[in-house]
Amino acid sequence: MEKNVNLSVGEAQARVMRHVPLGSVEDIPLERSLGRVLAEDARANRDLPPRDVSAMDGFAVRSADAACAGAVLTVIEDIRASDRPRSTVVDSQCARIMTGAPLPSGADAVIRVEDTRMLSGERVEILVPVKAGDDVRRRGEAMKTGDVVLEAGTKITPGVVGVLAAVKRTRVSVRRCPRVAVLSSGDELEALDAPFDPERIPESNGHALMAQVRTLGIEPAYLGIARDDPDDLADHLRRGLAHDVLLVSGGSSVGVHDHVRPALEALGVTLHFWCVEMKPGHPVALGTYGEHLVFALPGNPVSSMVCFEQFVGPALRAFMGHARPFRRAVAASLAREIKHRPGRTEFVRVTLRREADGRLIAASTGAQSSGNLCSMAQADALLIVPPQCAGLPSGAAVRVLPLDGAGFDAVSEFMEHTA
Amino acid sequence: MEKNVNLSVGEAQARVMRHVPLGSVEDIPLERSLGRVLAEDARANRDLPPRDVSAMDGFAVRSADAACAGAVLTVIEDIRASDRPRSTVVDSQCARIMTGAPLPSGADAVIRVEDTRMLSGERVEILVPVKAGDDVRRRGEAMKTGDVVLEAGTKITPGVVGVLAAVKRTRVSVRRCPRVAVLSSGDELEALDAPFDPERIPESNGHALMAQVRTLGIEPAYLGIARDDPDDLADHLRRGLAHDVLLVSGGSSVGVHDHVRPALEALGVTLHFWCVEMKPGHPVALGTYGEHLVFALPGNPVSSMVCFEQFVGPALRAFMGHARPFRRAVAASLAREIKHRPGRTEFVRVTLRREADGRLIAASTGAQSSGNLCSMAQADALLIVPPQCAGLPSGAAVRVLPLDGAGFDAVSEFMEHTA
Repeated sequence: MEKNVNLSVGEAQARVMRHVPLGSVEDIPLERSLGRVLAEDARANRDLPPRDVSAMDGFAVRSADAACAGAVLTVIEDIRASDRPRSTVVDSQCARIMTGAPLPSGADAVIRVEDTRMLSGERVEILVPVKAGDDVRRRGEAMKTGDVVLEAGTKITPGVVGVLAAVKRTRVSVRRCPRVAVLSSGDELEALDAPFDPERIPESNGHALMAQVRTLGIEPAYLGIARDDPDDLADHLRRGLAHDVLLVSGGSSVGVHDHVRPALEALGVTLHFWCVEMKPGHPVALGTYGEHLVFALPGNPVSSMVCFEQFVGPALRAFMGHARPFRRAVAASLAREIKHRPGRTEFVRVTLRREADGRLIAASTGAQSSGNLCSMAQADALLIVPPQCAGLPSGAAVRVLPLDGAGFDAVSEFMEHTA
Repeated sequence: MEKNVNLSVGEAQARVMRHVPLGSVEDIPLERSLGRVLAEDARANRDLPPRDVSAMDGFAVRSADAACAGAVLTVIEDIRASDRPRSTVVDSQCARIMTGAPLPSGADAVIRVEDTRMLSGERVEILVPVKAGDDVRRRGEAMKTGDVVLEAGTKITPGVVGVLAAVKRTRVSVRRCPRVAVLSSGDELEALDAPFDPERIPESNGHALMAQVRTLGIEPAYLGIARDDPDDLADHLRRGLAHDVLLVSGGSSVGVHDHVRPALEALGVTLHFWCVEMKPGHPVALGTYGEHLVFALPGNPVSSMVCFEQFVGPALRAFMGHARPFRRAVAASLAREIKHRPGRTEFVRVTLRREADGRLIAASTGAQSSGNLCSMAQADALLIVPPQCAGLPSGAAVRVLPLDGAGFDAVSEFMEHTA
């Protein structure tokens, strides 16, 4: 198993994905479905629009009457969205029509109100030639009865909620969320609610990891701190293994696997790797216990968060049925030189700012010590330094993995251009 | 007020931002603070690390004894993270030390275990020269007592939760969320729980808008459907105006402002614009009622979602104290030509896919009718066609505004490179 020592980030991610089970299906109310993944196709149960309707406010016309500018038509009716037309449009007649209102029989096109001029006696002059079908939305254009409008596997975004409401789904079948437990370990750790002791290290890993879990819409179970005692650790791990996914991080910097790895193996967990060629995050392990997953994460707060980003988040998303579990890298330019010793993939915490020409500029948050949690709090993204890289000069084209909330700016694209 | 007719997206956004109040401050539990904005600075209440500690597993040495490869030192003690060192390291002595463990007195550097060789009799050979300070994390390096570790205005991400836990904040002061009401209007609308009527239009706008509100962590109040009756509409609007922000969208396509604008004005709402040079979304209005905001959104489902993205989301984020309320545009290449008549800013629904070279390719989801809600469900982003543009050729460099969940891929950056 010594080959594990050289496992790349990509190889480790592939191993994780091989062991992630797909969550079972559950039925939940539409209003709680955001961020989940559809477990079945959704079909249209009606035609939308239910008949040919106007796409604009204007006049419903026979295109033959309005083919030339200068034609004059007589308005015979006003039709609103909730109306049923009463008349048929014949020679040189038209109907005033609102957006979304049904086309009267006889009419085959709409001319927009701004392309007409009202004359006396409910007559209207056509200023722009009209062709059949202009500004008409056809019955069933948006959806036809029986059509699959959303496929199983679709992530439920606000737009998808809109479509589900349009097909009258008050409840939807989705993949369930994994039950996730978070455990920290180490005698040196001080619980968040424990009295202050200047010699100890506050337990922050577990809280940061729980927040990462919550970004996926999953409410984790917190198992607290396991002490450096084999029985206490085994008890905590056993409780954790009852969950679909257990995240266990070491104390601030204890050689976590020294304790956790043998304890997991003694409980019957199969380990698939315990070390990845990355920095921070070198000592990270994946185990399975039946269909349950265990991630043993490094004790350093930044390392455990970076490992979550690379391995745990994708696993949780895959469990939930997401077809796209991995964050997409974006291109940026490097603000200042980064030194790097070839060997491991490095994740450098960076802030992102946008230049006037639209380029993203990535700047290191400063000291990249894996104990420096503040650097993670300041970061917009993780800059990827490939393992073979011998350093990146200022201005280098780089790839960065945005963190949550990085995709926002103080001014909008449009305000900049008008400033 | 006819100048309103030519309001650009940027000008309208600037008007929105001028009228958004800043939410008041509330105290909430740390575990519910994700996505909120800190209302006060957070300071360190201890030094971290609490003393000089080792950054690696290795040996704590006096650098003077280990300045040359080949030096041999005697191991006098083993120090773990939770230990207090008992001895002082003197001439040619060293201590075995774990990551995070305190440095014994006398020692001023650490040599990594992989840079040493064990000899008999608890002696260790130095293979790599050591300098003072090597692999030592200094007391207070991560944070010093009294330092501001997070400034007021910081968005609470998982990394920030970690820092807050590290400074033992079980409760945090944040800006409150706005209370948001969602109202739809139109006789042609069929409520989600109403019996099926093939002649009517299912109410989807309100549900899609509520989902957009929920992406910000805000649970909106749903006020249902106001009918095209002045009293019913006024009743509903009055209930809506009791909230910090009211979103009212027309029926599927009724000329919404014809009803809603005068009804709002009759209730004492001041309108600041009612029309923006954009497509979809031309008829969108901003009103204020004391400190409360009203957005009258178009009746078409896509239009109302696009207007939410440009105006409502930024307003809600600004209320919550976010310094970066606007989505950041990213660069992409256009897959296929887009036709455009100069005049309005157009938002084209696109999917994004990543080329092997890292470029994002944006492809229209097809029919861009504002009634085609499915196009919004399929979209990863909104492509911006500037108002003066006369069309975009295939391959054009474009800017796109990613929608929620767009930043994910089926394979990771790293799996691609190892495939």
